[in-house]
Amino acid sequence: MDLKASLLAAPGPQQRRAIAKAITLLESTRADHRARADELLTELLPHTGKSFRLGISGVPGVGKSTFIEALGLALIGQGHRVAVLAIDPSSSVSGGSILGDKTRMEQLSIHPQAYIRPSPSSGTLGGVAAKTREAMLVCEAAGYDLVIVETVGVGQSETAVAGMTDMFVLLQLPNAGDDLQAIKKGVMELADLVVINKADIDRDAATRAQAQITSALRILGQHGRPDHAQHDATLWHAQVLQLSALKAQGIDAFWQAVTRFRGLQEGSGRLAARRRQQALAWMWERIESGLRQAFRQHPQVKSLLPQITRDVEHGRLAASTAARQLLQVMRPGH
Amino acid sequence: MDLKASLLAAPGPQQRRAIAKAITLLESTRADHRARADELLTELLPHTGKSFRLGISGVPGVGKSTFIEALGLALIGQGHRVAVLAIDPSSSVSGGSILGDKTRMEQLSIHPQAYIRPSPSSGTLGGVAAKTREAMLVCEAAGYDLVIVETVGVGQSETAVAGMTDMFVLLQLPNAGDDLQAIKKGVMELADLVVINKADIDRDAATRAQAQITSALRILGQHGRPDHAQHDATLWHAQVLQLSALKAQGIDAFWQAVTRFRGLQEGSGRLAARRRQQALAWMWERIESGLRQAFRQHPQVKSLLPQITRDVEHGRLAASTAARQLLQVMRPGH
Repeated sequence: MDLKASLLAAPGPQQRRAIAKAITLLESTRADHRARADELLTELLPHTGKSFRLGISGVPGVGKSTFIEALGLALIGQGHRVAVLAIDPSSSVSGGSILGDKTRMEQLSIHPQAYIRPSPSSGTLGGVAAKTREAMLVCEAAGYDLVIVETVGVGQSETAVAGMTDMFVLLQLPNAGDDLQAIKKGVMELADLVVINKADIDRDAATRAQAQITSALRILGQHGRPDHAQHDATLWHAQVLQLSALKAQGIDAFWQAVTRFRGLQEGSGRLAARRRQQALAWMWERIESGLRQAFRQHPQVKSLLPQITRDVEHGRLAASTAARQLLQVMRPGH
Repeated sequence: MDLKASLLAAPGPQQRRAIAKAITLLESTRADHRARADELLTELLPHTGKSFRLGISGVPGVGKSTFIEALGLALIGQGHRVAVLAIDPSSSVSGGSILGDKTRMEQLSIHPQAYIRPSPSSGTLGGVAAKTREAMLVCEAAGYDLVIVETVGVGQSETAVAGMTDMFVLLQLPNAGDDLQAIKKGVMELADLVVINKADIDRDAATRAQAQITSALRILGQHGRPDHAQHDATLWHAQVLQLSALKAQGIDAFWQAVTRFRGLQEGSGRLAARRRQQALAWMWERIESGLRQAFRQHPQVKSLLPQITRDVEHGRLAASTAARQLLQVMRPGH
């Protein structure tokens, strides 16, 4: 049975092997693999898009793995199939951190109705995100109806995850007063839902954090960054929930909020619009990344760039003049 | 006397005409004008950089013109020379709004120690911002020691202005509770200083707004968006001031805050670093804009793009596959 057929067949060890094989193909840098991967993706596309795509972010220590394990097991208990993918821009440096160790989701990782894939461990953030986005399509074609994309709350990866999911959830610790400072600017406003985890440790702190974050979200406004597809502010205001993943408290309320959000987004046509926008934004992101790469690899640009960069830094050359000079060498016939 | 000499000569009607002529040259789309403009810019560069560059933004009606007029006249009274430039991304559509009508700064516009230039009225935001950035260099070479770059609080222009100035000031109205909603996400966090204008109209509301915005800034953190050069958070926390531009109340306190900020930034080397970062970011912004333009104008891309865009939108083609297909046609020898 070929790869596509195995992916679309019934769940089981063979399908699981096919998923792993397909994702390995997508992650390969060999041109012939890439061509086969593109062919496979195009064939799989009609079978994708039926899952709900949930993005989850939070700083290290906030309890993402515990939360995803508790959520995943609860949903599998309700008959769902759950895929968990990760984007970790630091993994190419550190050799993999989040999900690198599957034992962090001990029960979920061995469950037959779950599929867990660590972050691709090489490439730029754009490249890593591209692989994860494609891996998401493979999991959808294989019938996983909830795809969770996890990322750490450092770097630019939250934007990438919010840009490929239907709902973006930010996990927070109860000590908001101190730790809100640690949230990268621009991340809070991507959130469709904020979850204060470990709320059982200090109920008062969690309640204060809930109030503070609710107020911050209100002040930030509910419009979404203009460059990101978000929810419809007339239908949904980003909520703040408390829960304890470790004690499996609040998981039901969380899932109810997700379900309500999904219903509103689907009913208003906003889910489909968000996906269309995401796909187009993604195409352009990849095009621009490819153009930048071709530019930087051009022999003449390579030889001129260091000196021109120094001249611009030291104010000997206007930035716009420098740009025009460098673009000039890319012109055909130059 | 040639253009460069007239620009560097003593202030007066001749210099004023030279500035206007140089900026017109920079704004021209003719290739020979552009070449001469680049030459002029490179010659002027050693004479630039000595001014303080102040970015000012706020929604229509917040009183930007009144504020700039009050500030400009006060500073001219202290011996400064003040240039005011505008970036209005909507001016190419509307035919010019901010500064289009110089009578909005009645006294400042006719003052011999002030130079006011409306927004370039055609081009993309990137193009308009490029012209304004170059016009800023012309004004600096002509000895204006304060350059104000004004923009409206709509569109993406605040990011462009924050990316070309030493300090970014956001003007707000006293009714923050309602109107903070109208601040585009990501703008508040660009601010080095927030000014609540028209504070005399409702002192209580202004004081509430001041508290709310101070709290929002604290929650947002003081780290600056990673993609923007900002102030050093260990030295400066974005402040919130009340003033009334119409009654010329609070202008002194505002200028004291600017002066203190400038001193800290200069003393810590952060001003120079911010300018270096801005110049490099600007060069890359212009390069990427040029690459995008060349891509979109490529005949094969032009013919393929509409169908590929529809295929991606309707889920018939994966976004990354589409990007690879389009990049393929740009390859030499294809």
